[in-house]
Amino acid sequence: MLKNLKIEVCEANLELKRSKLVIYSWGNVSGINRNEGIVAIKPSGISYDELTPDGIILLDLEGNIVEGQLRPSSDTPTHLELYRNFEDIGGICHTHSMNATIWAQACQPIPCLGTTHADYFYGPVPVTRSMTKHEIEADYELNTGKAIVETFKDLNHAQMPAVLVANHGPFTWGPNPAKSVEASIVLEQVAEMALKTIILKPELTAIPQKLLSKHYLRKHGNNAYYGQNY
Amino acid sequence: MLKNLKIEVCEANLELKRSKLVIYSWGNVSGINRNEGIVAIKPSGISYDELTPDGIILLDLEGNIVEGQLRPSSDTPTHLELYRNFEDIGGICHTHSMNATIWAQACQPIPCLGTTHADYFYGPVPVTRSMTKHEIEADYELNTGKAIVETFKDLNHAQMPAVLVANHGPFTWGPNPAKSVEASIVLEQVAEMALKTIILKPELTAIPQKLLSKHYLRKHGNNAYYGQNY
Amino acid sequence: MLKNLKIEVCEANLELKRSKLVIYSWGNVSGINRNEGIVAIKPSGISYDELTPDGIILLDLEGNIVEGQLRPSSDTPTHLELYRNFEDIGGICHTHSMNATIWAQACQPIPCLGTTHADYFYGPVPVTRSMTKHEIEADYELNTGKAIVETFKDLNHAQMPAVLVANHGPFTWGPNPAKSVEASIVLEQVAEMALKTIILKPELTAIPQKLLSKHYLRKHGNNAYYGQNY
Amino acid sequence: MLKNLKIEVCEANLELKRSKLVIYSWGNVSGINRNEGIVAIKPSGISYDELTPDGIILLDLEGNIVEGQLRPSSDTPTHLELYRNFEDIGGICHTHSMNATIWAQACQPIPCLGTTHADYFYGPVPVTRSMTKHEIEADYELNTGKAIVETFKDLNHAQMPAVLVANHGPFTWGPNPAKSVEASIVLEQVAEMALKTIILKPELTAIPQKLLSKHYLRKHGNNAYYGQNY
Repeated sequence: MLKNLKIEVCEANLELKRSKLVIYSWGNVSGINRNEGIVAIKPSGISYDELTPDGIILLDLEGNIVEGQLRPSSDTPTHLELYRNFEDIGGICHTHSMNATIWAQACQPIPCLGTTHADYFYGPVPVTRSMTKHEIEADYELNTGKAIVETFKDLNHAQMPAVLVANHGPFTWGPNPAKSVEASIVLEQVAEMALKTIILKPELTAIPQKLLSKHYLRKHGNNAYYGQNY
Repeated sequence: MLKNLKIEVCEANLELKRSKLVIYSWGNVSGINRNEGIVAIKPSGISYDELTPDGIILLDLEGNIVEGQLRPSSDTPTHLELYRNFEDIGGICHTHSMNATIWAQACQPIPCLGTTHADYFYGPVPVTRSMTKHEIEADYELNTGKAIVETFKDLNHAQMPAVLVANHGPFTWGPNPAKSVEASIVLEQVAEMALKTIILKPELTAIPQKLLSKHYLRKHGNNAYYGQNY
Repeated sequence: MLKNLKIEVCEANLELKRSKLVIYSWGNVSGINRNEGIVAIKPSGISYDELTPDGIILLDLEGNIVEGQLRPSSDTPTHLELYRNFEDIGGICHTHSMNATIWAQACQPIPCLGTTHADYFYGPVPVTRSMTKHEIEADYELNTGKAIVETFKDLNHAQMPAVLVANHGPFTWGPNPAKSVEASIVLEQVAEMALKTIILKPELTAIPQKLLSKHYLRKHGNNAYYGQNY
Repeated sequence: MLKNLKIEVCEANLELKRSKLVIYSWGNVSGINRNEGIVAIKPSGISYDELTPDGIILLDLEGNIVEGQLRPSSDTPTHLELYRNFEDIGGICHTHSMNATIWAQACQPIPCLGTTHADYFYGPVPVTRSMTKHEIEADYELNTGKAIVETFKDLNHAQMPAVLVANHGPFTWGPNPAKSVEASIVLEQVAEMALKTIILKPELTAIPQKLLSKHYLRKHGNNAYYGQNY
C-alpha cells in the first residue's frame, strides 16, 4: 500500500542520517498522501541502519494504524496535528541537530542575520511558548503540535517552513519528505551562523526588510529568478 | 575464559574509537561478569588499532589479574571501585571527549537545558569534588573511584549513568559495555549543546522538572512508551 | 567553444564542493578568457553532482549568453562587474562558507591577527558598505558588484583577493578559477581563526605592520622566497 | 643517503596531513641523524600529495644542502636553531593548526586546565615574546628559532615539547619525527579544550600542581606506570 510514499519517507529518513543531523534514532521524517489521507512515518526507536520501506508505518490522520507491525515514532501526534492544520504540506522532519537545538533550548527565535537565512526563511525562525504542566502531563506530543500551530496563528507556514519547540528542538516541513529534510539541513547551517554572528557582535539585530524580501522572493514565489524552474 | 565478555569489551573499545570520542589511547571500556565476579578491561596505553579480544585483561574485583599478559588500564582501580559499589552496572567507559571534558575542567555540573539531555540523564550530570593532595599522592585511581561513589551518595546511578571527574573527564556506565559507550557518546552531544546554549544565554538554568520527568520517563522505567521494547 | 575554460570552471566548482565550503548550490565559480572577452560560469541552482563542462554557460562581458541552454548563476552580474573593473583577474568564487559569512553578517572586516592571514591577504579583509533600498530594488546583483569595486577604490585587489559583502558572504578572486577557490578556502580558515582569537582576547587588534609585510612579501612579489617558483 | 631518515620524515609529514592539522603546504616536519649531524626536511611549498622520500632535503646543521634538488622549507633556519640548542631532540613539527594558532595569535600561554594537558605537557605551554622590527627584517626564521630558545632559558624542553610563536603558530618536538607530530596533534586537542573551558569559566586558572605532577609523572620518567613500556 502506498509503496512510493513509503520509499520516499524511508529515503528521507536515511538522508537525515547521512547529513549527520541525527545520531542513534534522534529524528524522524514523515510524508502524507493527501488524496488517501494517509501519513507514513518512521517507527519509534529504530536505528537508521535497519530502516527499510517495509518498516515504515502508515496511519490515518486520526492516528489509527493502517499498516505496519511496529509502534510509530513517539512524535507521531505532533506530525498529525501539523498535517491537519498546515493543509498544503507534504512532509515533516524532526531532529535534535546541534545548533538549531541550542536556539530551541535558549527559547530564542533565530533572527535573520544574513542572506543565507533570507534565501530560505522569510523572517526570524519562531520558537513556541513553553508548555504548561498540564500540557506536558497528558497528550504531550499532541500538545506540542498544538503549540506549534498556535505559534503560526499570524505566520505563513509556507514562507516559514521551520519552528523551534521551546526546550526541545526543531521541526521543519515542505511540499514532500525530501524537502522537509532539506529545510532541516539549511536550518542547522543558519542556526550555527546566527549563533556565531551573535557571539562576534551581540548587539546585531536583523538585516533590512528590503534585503530579506529581495533574497526570499528571488528564490520563491511568482517573480523568482533563481534556479532553472521558474 | 569468558570469551564472549572479552569480545564484547573489545568491540565496545573499538566503537569508542569509531565514534571519534578518543584519539590515541585516551579512553577505556570495561565489562563485568557478575556471576564469576570477573572484570574485563583494555590494556594500558595500547593503540585501538592493535586491540583484539585476546588482548583484553581479566581481573577479579580486588584487582588480581586472572588472565592476560599486558598491564591493565591505569584507570582499572577506578573501574573496580565503581563495580563494587554500583552493583547492577555491567559496563564502564572513560574518555577525554572534548565537550564533556570541558565541563569537567571547569568543575561544573552540566545543567539539564533541554529534552535531549532529559531523554538520557535524569537531572544535571554531577561533578566530583576536587581531590586532596593526600588522595592524589597515593592510590590516586582508587581514590578517583571513591570520589565518584561519594558524589552518588544521594543520587541514583541507574538514572544518572555519567559523572564528570573534576579537572579530568567523564566516566559513564550502563547495563553492558556497549551501553556505557552509548552513554559517553550521548554525554558528549549533551555537553556540547549545553556549552553553546550557555554561551547564547548565560542566565539560563534548567528546564522545568515536569518536562525533565516526562522525557526521561517516556524512555525509561515502567511507563516508558518510546521504542519497541516496552 | 573554449572547451578548456569550461573544464577549468567546472573543475573549480567541483573543488568548491569537495572542500565542504558549500552545500546544495550555495556557491559559484567563474573564469574568463581575456583574449576572447568571454566569461564561463556555473548555471543557476544546479546541484554540483549534475555539473559537467558542457553545462557551463558562456557570456560576453555585457552579459549576453554566447553558449549554453541553462540560465547562468543569479550572481552573474556581480561577477561581470568585477571582471570589467579588476582587469587582471582570471577567476571569481562566491560562497556562503560558515566563518567568512559570519564576519560578513556582522559587517566587520576581518583583522589580520596572525601570520596565517598575512601569508595570503595584505591587510584586513574589507567589508562592503550596506546597500541602499534603491540598490537592492533594481539591478541588485550588479549593484553588489559596484559596491565591491567601490570598496577597492583605495585598495590593491591583487594583494587583497577577497571581500565580504555586508549581510551576505564572501567573494574571492585570483589569476584563474582554481586560485579563486583556494582564496575562499584560505579565507574560511582565517575567518575561523580570527573569530576564535577575538573570543579569547577581545581587545586584540592587528599584528605589527612589519610582520604583515614580512609574511606577505616572502610569499608574493619580486623578493618572494617561499615555494619553488621564484 | 640516510634513506631511513628520509622515509621517516616523509611519513611524518604525511601523517600531519592525514591528521587534518594542515591544509595545502601549511606545515613541515623534520628529523635529524645526530651521528651524521644531518637534518632532513620537507621542501618549501610542495603539496603533501606530491611528497616522496626522494623529495626530502638533507642539510647540515649550518644549513648547507647536502642532498636534494628543491629549496628546503622556508622555516628551515628555525628548525636548525632548535636542533643546535635542544641537543636531545630528534624531530620537529610546525603547523598552523586552528586552536593552537589561536592561542599563538592571542600571544597567551595555554594554561594547564586539566589532566589531558598534564598527561603530555608539564605546565603551561609557553609563548615567545613578540619579535622586534630588526629581528623580523633580517634572518627572520633564524630569529624565530632564537626567540624559542630564549623562551626555554628556564624551562625543560624535554618536559615541554611545544611552544607557541607569538602572532604565528606552534612548533613541537620529540625524540623522533613521528613523536613531534603526535605532540602537535595533542597540542591541538589541548588548545581547543582550554579555549572552550575559558569560555565556560573565564576566571579559571590552572589545576593544582600536585595533580599536574601526578598525571605527567605517571606517564613520563622513572616512576611512570602508564602503558606497557616502563
